[in-house]
Amino acid sequence: MTDIFEVPSPDNNLLDKAEQLRLASIKTSQTNNNERIRALNLMADSLEKNSKEIIDSNFEDYKKAEIKGISKALLSRLKLSKEKLNLGIEGIRKVGDLSDPLGQIQIKKELSKGLILERKTVPIGVLGVIFESRPDAVMQISSLAIRAGNGVMLKGGSEANFTNQAIVSALKKGLQKSNIDDNAICLLTSRKDSMAMLNLEKFINLIIPRGSNELVKFIQENTGIPVLGHADGICHLYIDDEVNLDIALKVALDSKIQYPAACNAIETLLIHKSIAPAFLKKAIPIFNSNNVKLIGDKKAVKLGVAFEANYEDWQTEYLDLILSIKIVDDLEEGIAHIQKFSSKHTDGIITENISNANKFMSEIDSAGVFHNCSTRFADGFRYGFGAEVGISTQTLPPRGPVGLEGLVTYKYFLRGEGHSVDDFSSGKSIYTHKDL
Amino acid sequence: MTDIFEVPSPDNNLLDKAEQLRLASIKTSQTNNNERIRALNLMADSLEKNSKEIIDSNFEDYKKAEIKGISKALLSRLKLSKEKLNLGIEGIRKVGDLSDPLGQIQIKKELSKGLILERKTVPIGVLGVIFESRPDAVMQISSLAIRAGNGVMLKGGSEANFTNQAIVSALKKGLQKSNIDDNAICLLTSRKDSMAMLNLEKFINLIIPRGSNELVKFIQENTGIPVLGHADGICHLYIDDEVNLDIALKVALDSKIQYPAACNAIETLLIHKSIAPAFLKKAIPIFNSNNVKLIGDKKAVKLGVAFEANYEDWQTEYLDLILSIKIVDDLEEGIAHIQKFSSKHTDGIITENISNANKFMSEIDSAGVFHNCSTRFADGFRYGFGAEVGISTQTLPPRGPVGLEGLVTYKYFLRGEGHSVDDFSSGKSIYTHKDL
Repeated sequence: MTDIFEVPSPDNNLLDKAEQLRLASIKTSQTNNNERIRALNLMADSLEKNSKEIIDSNFEDYKKAEIKGISKALLSRLKLSKEKLNLGIEGIRKVGDLSDPLGQIQIKKELSKGLILERKTVPIGVLGVIFESRPDAVMQISSLAIRAGNGVMLKGGSEANFTNQAIVSALKKGLQKSNIDDNAICLLTSRKDSMAMLNLEKFINLIIPRGSNELVKFIQENTGIPVLGHADGICHLYIDDEVNLDIALKVALDSKIQYPAACNAIETLLIHKSIAPAFLKKAIPIFNSNNVKLIGDKKAVKLGVAFEANYEDWQTEYLDLILSIKIVDDLEEGIAHIQKFSSKHTDGIITENISNANKFMSEIDSAGVFHNCSTRFADGFRYGFGAEVGISTQTLPPRGPVGLEGLVTYKYFLRGEGHSVDDFSSGKSIYTHKDL
Repeated sequence: MTDIFEVPSPDNNLLDKAEQLRLASIKTSQTNNNERIRALNLMADSLEKNSKEIIDSNFEDYKKAEIKGISKALLSRLKLSKEKLNLGIEGIRKVGDLSDPLGQIQIKKELSKGLILERKTVPIGVLGVIFESRPDAVMQISSLAIRAGNGVMLKGGSEANFTNQAIVSALKKGLQKSNIDDNAICLLTSRKDSMAMLNLEKFINLIIPRGSNELVKFIQENTGIPVLGHADGICHLYIDDEVNLDIALKVALDSKIQYPAACNAIETLLIHKSIAPAFLKKAIPIFNSNNVKLIGDKKAVKLGVAFEANYEDWQTEYLDLILSIKIVDDLEEGIAHIQKFSSKHTDGIITENISNANKFMSEIDSAGVFHNCSTRFADGFRYGFGAEVGISTQTLPPRGPVGLEGLVTYKYFLRGEGHSVDDFSSGKSIYTHKDL
């Protein structure tokens, strides 16, 4: 996306689509739980029925992409096998099984006799989702959006255009049999439209980008619409002096190599100086045999780390089998390093000292603070949320792995019998402020 | 603020202050409930002890402002009488009485044997508050910030500089006797610094502007830091055909005249055509006798409204005794008008028809949707939140009147015994996802 420097104004065609989507999203917000569950099942049925067209469309996309010579990694993400499609369909039914996020009463109180305040969860409205490659994201995001009573405007990578169109066409056919207006799902296919989406403040309430750091950064810097997501995932693991070395080795290795391209994999290992010789003696051969390139500060190099780190390393998300290592004098220095360089995604400590663990978890203000376990657990599925729309590294909620709960907001409902504020100013009425 | 078009970079002096504040805010986040309550009481004691200096400083500010010829409204907001100061002090003690917003467990579950996930409320970090005139805001905001474990950077209007300095000096003296680092409150006095504050993304987690629409808009457009607040408050009241005319009149009048300069006062009244003649016949003389200037569409003018409205009127926040009136054919037209022009603050319906009320409250996506009561109830104190930092018109939480609850966020704490994700991939471990 780095070649796009201008966000175009939406043209009339896009504005029409956005208006239809907005109206459909209002209708969707009025549906009840059973109607939304039924809609998801009809969406899943329709995908099953149209699976041949979808797989064929994906084959077209794949052939084109191969000729174009796109990278192997992108090709593998683009490929939608029958198994992947079935997993996507199963995922939609599972989202139907999640409990209704709407209509949850968060506050209910009597402000005064006959004047009742309620705060209830309601849909956000319209989600704008921009994602790269993975056509399975269309199924996941659409089902989460509808489950939470929202409309959704989708824009996938152009290399998956045929696949995305086939999937959305099937989803809409499913919706047509349900009580939900099929305009609640809207697919954009041109890059111009997807950029203009960033200017649809009046129609879109939340942008969810799913893709490279560059994509996310570009979107964050070029829209006034709130963005749910994260650009960098610079996660740390600090190994304290009082540790069980086996746990430290196991967790450090898992945090780095279990899936190095994930945002929740660690980029930097901080090691207390008094445990560093013993730890690195065991760890270096293991990392080497797992093809992890180790880069360290001067002290780490003295202890056998092959390459010396420069300042840039502490703020780099490698997304690869590369790990930077720093030896620190104490817990405080470890915390200070993380406070400076963390992208506030997930940071962990390995220690047998509970008060050190508590200090670390309290002073590090990342979305996830972990003790004696792999940073790779920072994930909506592993947290048991059933499905995930993304991981937010912002300070304000929703932060961390965001499930269905992140696709709703709340509003205040106040019901009276002709109550005026003046009656309270004059002393004629009084506030009772009683929880109901 | 409209004369400022450039946001300067923070200078070294400001960066030093911000760093001290950041470190103090981390220490504050570690304090327990009793320590924070004690700090608030010491802050209140110190204000009492230094009340003469504060009142004297305010007198200096007032004299200067009078000579400068600032408006009467501003002068009256600037004035800090002994009574207002005492109310502020009492307010601080009341914030101490509110229940602790920190450490609330929102989620607690076992992900697998020995792997426990908790989501708990934590402070946001550092708040940046920019406000105009009212020196009482310093006391209110500082106490709310400290109560929720945050640090706060404050910038008030320059016309209240002496007062603000005297208040902050007293608050800091109070904090010095407590367990909270007095660097947790930081006052800026130059306009250059207050604008540079908008570029302190690394130090400030949330900006809270309290002032004119122009100030809020300027801030929203010139910072990458999340902003809690609202610019416009264009609130509507829709009067349905099936109404109790007395209720309709009473609520319409209260919503407009009880305090017309408030953001929760209505700017537009929408009236169902079949009730409009009867309603306006009674309402026009009452509004006239209360000096409310009525502006209406053609149909309203035919029914006696004095002035004709233009398009601009439907999107104007008068903040004054002016009311625009539109006659609509039905509920749907009323809802559509509000969906188009509402600033999503608070919109109300007057009706005896429950299903119409429900439709209205469900289809209007404002922070507050009211039935048969005045829009002026949209307020943190009236909602029973004890204190209010502001009212947010954004779609995502916190929205509506925001109390102490809006000054906290949450984070995920995961504690294990050496758990690795690989053990789950290989089938060696299984997820239990059991609520605790």
